[in-house]
Amino acid sequence: MAADLTDLRALDAADPLRSFRDRFDLPQGVIYLDGNSLGALPKATRERLKAAVDEEWGKGLIRSWNSHDWIGAPARIGDKIAGLIGAKAGEVIVADSTSVNLFKLITAALRARPGRRVILTEPGNFPTDLYIARGVAELIGDVEIKLAPADQIADAIDEQVALVMLTHVHYKTGARHDMAATTRRAHEAGALALWDLSHSCGALEVDLNGAGADLAVGCGYKYLNGGPGAPAFLFVAERHQAALRSPLTGWMGHAAGFDFVDDYQPADGIARFLCGTPSVLAMLALEVGVDLVAEAGMPALAAKSRKLCSAFVEAVESRCVGSGLTLVTSRDDAVRGSQVSFAHPDAYPIMQALIERGVIGDFRAPDILRFGFTPLYVGFKDVGHAADILADILSSGMWRAPRFSERSAVT
Amino acid sequence: MAADLTDLRALDAADPLRSFRDRFDLPQGVIYLDGNSLGALPKATRERLKAAVDEEWGKGLIRSWNSHDWIGAPARIGDKIAGLIGAKAGEVIVADSTSVNLFKLITAALRARPGRRVILTEPGNFPTDLYIARGVAELIGDVEIKLAPADQIADAIDEQVALVMLTHVHYKTGARHDMAATTRRAHEAGALALWDLSHSCGALEVDLNGAGADLAVGCGYKYLNGGPGAPAFLFVAERHQAALRSPLTGWMGHAAGFDFVDDYQPADGIARFLCGTPSVLAMLALEVGVDLVAEAGMPALAAKSRKLCSAFVEAVESRCVGSGLTLVTSRDDAVRGSQVSFAHPDAYPIMQALIERGVIGDFRAPDILRFGFTPLYVGFKDVGHAADILADILSSGMWRAPRFSERSAVT
Repeated sequence: MAADLTDLRALDAADPLRSFRDRFDLPQGVIYLDGNSLGALPKATRERLKAAVDEEWGKGLIRSWNSHDWIGAPARIGDKIAGLIGAKAGEVIVADSTSVNLFKLITAALRARPGRRVILTEPGNFPTDLYIARGVAELIGDVEIKLAPADQIADAIDEQVALVMLTHVHYKTGARHDMAATTRRAHEAGALALWDLSHSCGALEVDLNGAGADLAVGCGYKYLNGGPGAPAFLFVAERHQAALRSPLTGWMGHAAGFDFVDDYQPADGIARFLCGTPSVLAMLALEVGVDLVAEAGMPALAAKSRKLCSAFVEAVESRCVGSGLTLVTSRDDAVRGSQVSFAHPDAYPIMQALIERGVIGDFRAPDILRFGFTPLYVGFKDVGHAADILADILSSGMWRAPRFSERSAVT
Repeated sequence: MAADLTDLRALDAADPLRSFRDRFDLPQGVIYLDGNSLGALPKATRERLKAAVDEEWGKGLIRSWNSHDWIGAPARIGDKIAGLIGAKAGEVIVADSTSVNLFKLITAALRARPGRRVILTEPGNFPTDLYIARGVAELIGDVEIKLAPADQIADAIDEQVALVMLTHVHYKTGARHDMAATTRRAHEAGALALWDLSHSCGALEVDLNGAGADLAVGCGYKYLNGGPGAPAFLFVAERHQAALRSPLTGWMGHAAGFDFVDDYQPADGIARFLCGTPSVLAMLALEVGVDLVAEAGMPALAAKSRKLCSAFVEAVESRCVGSGLTLVTSRDDAVRGSQVSFAHPDAYPIMQALIERGVIGDFRAPDILRFGFTPLYVGFKDVGHAADILADILSSGMWRAPRFSERSAVT
């Protein structure tokens, strides 16, 4: 059993990724189980940013667009991310935010399926995905956003559906969709499938081309450790690139952006999904995080993620019997992300007490304690200690102190 | 006369902004006249980024959204920029790129003027402005983009026009529009006016509310010195905020973004024009640049900008007689930006030779030598030296060496 400290220490000792923990700066006394909200700081990011600021911006100035290949960063980093998610070089590009990229791809998909006006997704999908879809519908009109619970999505895919849009791993429950099966079903009905990888990329094995996926977006600041608000990425399968057009036709997506002509001509390939000038500093910080994930390798990271989640479930369940916690996430690796969620009627003050004790996870309304496991820097002993502290908080009732119930702006 | 070195030294000695030069890192031997493409590095940015990375991201982790007020950065920095462009607090917000912000405001304007389908702008406007307008037209259909030369814009504004969209200072010629007069003409015809301040904000006095402007966008990485690809900003006059809706309805623009509800409800005020999560590092770097401009004060900066441009024109004309240069920019401060452009049939190799000699300006096709004057860090002696080097290159014919004609990817 992975529940006691001796066993957890043995798992750490046998962990082939153990040394990656030292490549991150994490504050003393903190067990960080919130890398699915904001990834930790890679030590190498500091030096990379210093060089980018002092040498590239300060000394190179405008010349660095060429001499330090700033102009190539979106495609270069995109190619690196492609290798993490089962995509080919030239199918992924780094740009804008996840929300903006969703807007590009949802509108592109609707225009590629004229006569079909339904975007099918699930209730409780990551909010910005739903919001962006509603914004598209309001803008171009005559679009229906149809919500079906996860287990009814397949049956809801019909000839009216232009796009099936789902988050691969649910941000709250950690439930994972079967990307291949749902994509196949979408294709059978003539629809396209768009996957939001924000809660999977960097922690789980994702195989976009293996699943036949059409479109995807993902986040740079969660498991990729790109820094707060890091640029996002998008994927368009090579077979669709020539036909799909981004509605956000900024100069970076132009076939000849430096010719300064009046007419718009989209670039060939994935570059047409770029829009305006990206933050170079943010791009280069993201690249450090992506390089670390690539160095560790997705198979090893995914294997460790599965073990961390199982060990945490076991550790909590063995220590917190009768405490009112209900496991929300599946015990089955195959349908779970790199996170474990428990429900508790007093989840909010319990999470505040955990944070005060150095265990940083997330509260998600109305009653979810969410714990994310970034295999690059979370160890098995951390999992046991976090469970110990949770058990202590629950048994002592310390979370009932009034200070833990005060809501702050960002929860 | 401001043309000889003694006079230029006297102007430097009398320059109230002279000390700001030391607040920037500029490489030895470089005269940087390209701050209208990428602003120079403020020394304070280095320390600010170091603290943001080490303390706020590394130690604070997810908690810094509250404890370091990352969540408040777009509005806080927007309010600071508002003070530079004649806007009120709450009318400006920092978000996304200039291109993405143009998309938001163009579509919002078209929806606010139902029945009118013309976007009026000028040929040769900054390319991304035209491209984005074309993307909007292609997406929502039944929109005409009408191009009228600058001197015919006023006459072209009729009852069909929904939006007059212009760049305040032309990126190539440096010509400045009369914002108040054109806005007035737009309003008389029932149209809205959108101003792109990318080539004015931070170098010229801009009075959006004095001019009655409806909408504006602007760039963070030119005269605001926010770093390569710094976030952009947008302005929506308070009187329009309740009625206008952004089509990019991401979670940051939601009335209650942390409630994670399925339905979209736009925030009150300017915050509804936010979309996804911004790069915090890029935001905080921009803030340093904005603070420097605010500290120097726009009236002093604008006054120095005018003098720098006049001194450069005079210095070049006195040294380069018969060299084939044609002044493109007006001699009249009132209709000019903070830049001077000369045409020459061999502008490209001449600019390459200038860059090799340490004078960094821009070539703009087909024949423009463009020199930008950032009053925070360009001095009057710089202006004289740059003119000396230009004269030397032209008289020696060194720019005819084959190496100067090779085109690089970014020009």
